[in-house]
Amino acid sequence: MFSWLRKDKRHDEVKTYQTVIDGLKEMYKTKLLPLEKEYKYGEFHSPYLNAGDFDAKPMVLLIGQYSTGKTTFIRYLLERDFPGIRIGPEPTTDRFMALMHGPHDQSIPGNALAVDPNRQFRALQQFGNAFLSRFEGSCLPSGVLESITLIDTPGILSGEKQRVHRGYDFEAVIEWFADRADMIILLFDAHKLDISDEFQRVIHTIKRNQEKIRIVLNKADMVTTQQLMRVYGALMWSLGKVVNSPEVVRVYIGSFWDKQLQFDENRRLFEAEQEDLFADIQSLPRSNAVRRLNEMIKRARLAKVHAYILDQLRSQMPSLFGKQSKKDELITNLPNIFHSIQKRYQLPVGDFPPVKRLQQQLEEYDFTKFPKLNVGLIDSVDVMLAKDLTRIMQMLPKEEALTKDKRIR
Amino acid sequence: MFSWLRKDKRHDEVKTYQTVIDGLKEMYKTKLLPLEKEYKYGEFHSPYLNAGDFDAKPMVLLIGQYSTGKTTFIRYLLERDFPGIRIGPEPTTDRFMALMHGPHDQSIPGNALAVDPNRQFRALQQFGNAFLSRFEGSCLPSGVLESITLIDTPGILSGEKQRVHRGYDFEAVIEWFADRADMIILLFDAHKLDISDEFQRVIHTIKRNQEKIRIVLNKADMVTTQQLMRVYGALMWSLGKVVNSPEVVRVYIGSFWDKQLQFDENRRLFEAEQEDLFADIQSLPRSNAVRRLNEMIKRARLAKVHAYILDQLRSQMPSLFGKQSKKDELITNLPNIFHSIQKRYQLPVGDFPPVKRLQQQLEEYDFTKFPKLNVGLIDSVDVMLAKDLTRIMQMLPKEEALTKDKRIR
Ligand SMILES: Nc1ncnc2c1ncn2[C@@H]1O[C@H](COP(=O)(O)OP(=O)(O)OP(=O)(O)O)[C@@H](O)[C@H]1O
Ligand SMILES: Nc1ncnc2c1ncn2[C@@H]1O[C@H](COP(=O)(O)OP(=O)(O)OP(=O)(O)O)[C@@H](O)[C@H]1O
Ligand SMILES: [Mg+2]
Ligand SMILES: [Mg+2]
Repeated sequence: MFSWLRKDKRHDEVKTYQTVIDGLKEMYKTKLLPLEKEYKYGEFHSPYLNAGDFDAKPMVLLIGQYSTGKTTFIRYLLERDFPGIRIGPEPTTDRFMALMHGPHDQSIPGNALAVDPNRQFRALQQFGNAFLSRFEGSCLPSGVLESITLIDTPGILSGEKQRVHRGYDFEAVIEWFADRADMIILLFDAHKLDISDEFQRVIHTIKRNQEKIRIVLNKADMVTTQQLMRVYGALMWSLGKVVNSPEVVRVYIGSFWDKQLQFDENRRLFEAEQEDLFADIQSLPRSNAVRRLNEMIKRARLAKVHAYILDQLRSQMPSLFGKQSKKDELITNLPNIFHSIQKRYQLPVGDFPPVKRLQQQLEEYDFTKFPKLNVGLIDSVDVMLAKDLTRIMQMLPKEEALTKDKRIR
Repeated sequence: MFSWLRKDKRHDEVKTYQTVIDGLKEMYKTKLLPLEKEYKYGEFHSPYLNAGDFDAKPMVLLIGQYSTGKTTFIRYLLERDFPGIRIGPEPTTDRFMALMHGPHDQSIPGNALAVDPNRQFRALQQFGNAFLSRFEGSCLPSGVLESITLIDTPGILSGEKQRVHRGYDFEAVIEWFADRADMIILLFDAHKLDISDEFQRVIHTIKRNQEKIRIVLNKADMVTTQQLMRVYGALMWSLGKVVNSPEVVRVYIGSFWDKQLQFDENRRLFEAEQEDLFADIQSLPRSNAVRRLNEMIKRARLAKVHAYILDQLRSQMPSLFGKQSKKDELITNLPNIFHSIQKRYQLPVGDFPPVKRLQQQLEEYDFTKFPKLNVGLIDSVDVMLAKDLTRIMQMLPKEEALTKDKRIR
């Protein structure tokens, strides 16, 4: 049915990306993390990465008004029910469901998910118990989930229903998932097009991730072709103004379930659109691996620079008198310190962190306690950048020629 | 072919609207114009109406980038060539063409059109000879042109071609026609979608007339259905941001000429869209007549108020001394004078002109020369408002139930 199901091909691809990610994980642990820890990178820039950060699969987030067919869409993609699935015309899904691969069907409570160090959800604890009780893991042995993780969400409400308080900051949670997702699918119902105030606010919140956004205009067979044109046009007219970017978001028009089409006229269009969407989803593991490689390179370069900065600050401190005023002077002078390090080591400006933030952070530290430059650790990272990352990049399968342009440029 | 061509029905309708307009014209000349002239309405508010203003048919303005098919569209609508027609893939139409009904084929130079008091184009003289030499009338005995007048325009240029100077203020001319048209058709080529900088500026200029705008997505059979969806989506996405109104502009998708469809898949959609567009155009005489009736009512009410104002100003002036200071005082006090007239005659605020503008205009006048209130002229207008206009309104054919909603609300 879908090219998705060419099991042999898919399985090989899955193994390849797994190998790439495992390679990154090992390389980080042995070559970069020691440098980061020596100079307390995690206290200054971003938390140290753990297994969960590497093992997490590309995430596809589904958002939309209630009853637009999000849960049905997931079921259609997986070709089976999942633990905890609920489908119905009234607002049905009342929690965030993370659909992940597992050896057998299993539901995992949100609290358990959020403390698991081998998963990517630890930061969700910030949203409190009111959210965690509305967060659930659903594991199942689906081939699709070997490549991606799906996040089903509570339907966004409209009209009177918008007054219902969820008890946690729904928009902030959506924002968290949106910033970490590889693809954000916004579902709309062609039969009942609606963009409530709450939905508009959500779109505003996530629009900085606009290159990840895909629109699905669902239930497109429930209206005549002329009506479909009116609905599609109204949708693009309104969304263009909310997202407010020159680049047009890709829309997939169709009916994402296995029932017969009500109006059959556009069957071939819907089938072609569906193929395009599934190809788009299938390209996520690769783009995700490429992104993570690039992020690792940036992280390594920043870790080196960070070490140079701390070493430089330490080396400028007097042994006995005038420590505080020297520290103040160095902090004020940080831009020049950046400059001299750039010149000495021939490093580009882009490798350096934002000045102001670092100045504020440095106030809390005793510069004399910063470690000396550990050349061994630096060299290790240089080898990683010069050799290991190249080796890992070559493991990536060649990008299949894209037959259809997914994004309007 | 088109219901347009049910000649007997159309001919009766044309005669009815003609009768309505003739009734308005006669009523204005005998009952309102005398009041307007007595109190110099034409010097304060808007020019006195002449035959040309009444006889002018509803105007349909076609705008679009070069080669999108505007002239071809007109030919398709008229089902024959018109004097001066030129069609071709390179930028072809180089002038504004007014297509009007006439007993036999005839071209009329722009200069002649613009001085003719029986036509609606006199104000175009403001754009100078450089424009008038690029303005032409094309008369032909077409049934379609008994109901409407069509305005073909030079294609809007793109890219390098935009640097060509036309020699007159193209955007200002477009704006003039747009403000007076009953419908503005923006044509786009689905095969080569382009919204050049010049076209964006034009759309900005005309967007205050946004309720008159219709989009035609032409040559829609020259692309596959999927490509058509991408182009249509991109068009609405971009236009929504330029027009920037919550109301979606209606788009008609199709191929507006008589050649075979290249991709046949959407034949039925294109045919339905075309029928809708032609029905939309056919409704113009009626909406135009309704609009002119409403405008006449507003004009009559303002003419009465204007007479009351001038009379009041005159009556407050001293016979001998202190004329200038009294005049100054009355001008400053104009809002209160408005107020007292509203109370005395029980008139709504909406009937009154903008205060500031009238204050500026009144500086130039000697209030002692304003005529006394002529009750006979006022009564005449009251009879017109109470009886004649009602009689004329009843002449309008009942509005046919619209089977399709042309505007998304
Ligand atoms: N492609 C489709 N065509 C027509 N009806 C559909 C389609 N997909 C789902 N439905 C119907 O729409 C209703 C809502 O489906 P579903 O529960 O999947 O929506 P949802 O977006 O998950 O809603 P919620 O946000 O409330 O969980 C159900 O009655 C379902 O059968
Ligand atoms: N529906 C259609 N499908 C395909 N081609 C078309 C269609 N209508 C017109 N054309 C072709 O497009 C070209 C441009 O047509 P036309 O001259 O009518 O465009 P235009 O918008 O009037 O251009 P200009 O602004 O330069 O006058 C011609 O070659 C014509 O044959
Ligand atoms: Mg659901
Ligand atoms: Mg032309």
